[in-house]
Amino acid sequence: MEFILVSHGDLAKGMLTSAQMIVGPQAQVAAFGLYPQEDVSTLRQQIVTYLQPLDANQIICFTDLFNGSPCNVVTSLMDQYNIRHLTGMNLALILEAFMMRQDPHNSREDLCHALLRQAPQTFVDINQFLDESKE
Amino acid sequence: MEFILVSHGDLAKGMLTSAQMIVGPQAQVAAFGLYPQEDVSTLRQQIVTYLQPLDANQIICFTDLFNGSPCNVVTSLMDQYNIRHLTGMNLALILEAFMMRQDPHNSREDLCHALLRQAPQTFVDINQFLDESKE
Repeated sequence: MEFILVSHGDLAKGMLTSAQMIVGPQAQVAAFGLYPQEDVSTLRQQIVTYLQPLDANQIICFTDLFNGSPCNVVTSLMDQYNIRHLTGMNLALILEAFMMRQDPHNSREDLCHALLRQAPQTFVDINQFLDESKE
Repeated sequence: MEFILVSHGDLAKGMLTSAQMIVGPQAQVAAFGLYPQEDVSTLRQQIVTYLQPLDANQIICFTDLFNGSPCNVVTSLMDQYNIRHLTGMNLALILEAFMMRQDPHNSREDLCHALLRQAPQTFVDINQFLDESKE
């Protein structure tokens, strides 16, 4: 399974290096950014060049923001390539994706469904958590 | 209101620069990273130095990952400083925080509650979204 992270600016690259600080170096993953004054067609071409030799059925693209330009660029590829595309990534979900991918029993669909199920619990109010811990 | 973003590595800095690509330059915000071979006490001291001259009652800290070291460093400051602390940030939530902060009617609590309410909708299955759009 292959992961492609795409964002405005350096967010995707930062997320990938931060994730690798925790789970160690990962293969079969790439990160791309859309930079100021850069045309979306440049980003699109970079992603196409990367994914073309791969099996699209094994690709999950993670983007930063629903309806943002990076999300829309990846969405524009979905007619042509049978990729899965989840937007709104955070570090917890990227880490979970890397961990689930290690188990060959997990299909791409298993992985996407697990992330979608877990996502609402990954944004946590620490003040409330501490208050509840004291009770 | 002041925002402090804290993460493993460059994620927080990447998220801040990416957010500013969308909403423009922002004041009253800082980003800190914990880097490999760096002690958590270094990160803790950097954050303390930054927040000490500020009104803690007006600070929201956003961290990358529940129970990660950056999250735990910020949590360790919560006894001493009356900060709000939300973990599991993504770009959609940071953007919403910047936008809500522009309205002086929104208190720190208003902002935290709105983000916690919106968070579950910020991770989106684009394949499912497109399928539903076609129906």
